[in-house]
Amino acid sequence: MPKIVDHEKMKNIIAEATWKIISEKGIHQATSRTIAKEAGLSQGALRHYFSKQESLLAFAMELVKEKVLIRLRNLNARELSPQERIVEYLLELVPTDEQTLLEMEVWFAFVAYGKTQQGFDTNYEDLQNAIRNCITYLKNEGLLRTTDEEKEQETLYAFMNGMALNLYLEPDKINRTRSKEMIQDYINWIIR
Amino acid sequence: MPKIVDHEKMKNIIAEATWKIISEKGIHQATSRTIAKEAGLSQGALRHYFSKQESLLAFAMELVKEKVLIRLRNLNARELSPQERIVEYLLELVPTDEQTLLEMEVWFAFVAYGKTQQGFDTNYEDLQNAIRNCITYLKNEGLLRTTDEEKEQETLYAFMNGMALNLYLEPDKINRTRSKEMIQDYINWIIR
Repeated sequence: MPKIVDHEKMKNIIAEATWKIISEKGIHQATSRTIAKEAGLSQGALRHYFSKQESLLAFAMELVKEKVLIRLRNLNARELSPQERIVEYLLELVPTDEQTLLEMEVWFAFVAYGKTQQGFDTNYEDLQNAIRNCITYLKNEGLLRTTDEEKEQETLYAFMNGMALNLYLEPDKINRTRSKEMIQDYINWIIR
Repeated sequence: MPKIVDHEKMKNIIAEATWKIISEKGIHQATSRTIAKEAGLSQGALRHYFSKQESLLAFAMELVKEKVLIRLRNLNARELSPQERIVEYLLELVPTDEQTLLEMEVWFAFVAYGKTQQGFDTNYEDLQNAIRNCITYLKNEGLLRTTDEEKEQETLYAFMNGMALNLYLEPDKINRTRSKEMIQDYINWIIR
């Protein structure tokens, strides 16, 4: 008799098992065999939730993005000055603890994977837009120092990606206070 | 009768064939079979130059670094103001054409690979130090705005890595003039 399980919850468990494999062994080891084992399922049960390897990887990637976007939305509810809001917002996009480091590891693995796998859409435009919107927001608040909005977007995007990449490469340097300071300095530079 | 070949030259040819495979198919496809085929050698001949897969990959990675470091050294011979020198120097660290994009693709592939392969030393400290030295140089010239040398190094490193990563992900945005402008703006920010 089949067990009654929450389909979405099980998909999340599988996606998180996928993250763990990717983080520890690399994306090329994320096969139905290793993932099923990590999630405590048979390969047949795994195929029930994800019939194809690609759809499993796509879901695991979406879940990373979803977690970040939820944190960003939660910030909207907080009372913050425009400048503080942007700093807190950007701080959500760099690894500051074990959980966000894991997300970052998985994210970069997918990005590198997507570069050489035709048809695998990493779809990182959402996060790129999240960063771009910070500049537009500052501009609309009359806080942006320059008029070249596009260049400011590109430069902030570079800075944020670089911070994230560095912490991914050297996770023992993860330090929320330090990252916040660096972001504050940067924002102080670009506002007037 | 064995052909007379320049051993170092042949190793370079093999390393460049390795780059091409990595760039087009990903590092996990860079096997002795695909590399030998790309380089126009038998697998036996390939093993003559590199008896182990790891030593081939390590050499291909070193060659990327070597090419960058040669360009950086060439800059020393040019007559430039301290500020111009740093801008030109940093510009060598982001992709500005097909060749430097290829280097960047191979570089990121190695970095991602090194994260999950025990014992494969990506050794990116050399490039990290190249960037750190820019800040020390500006400081020694009395040009650095702040006294927190370490934070300035970290922030510049983030900015440069981010620019490189963005151009790797979206190579159709490669634009030497634009990159130079962004670096100039950044340096203008951090100097006094």
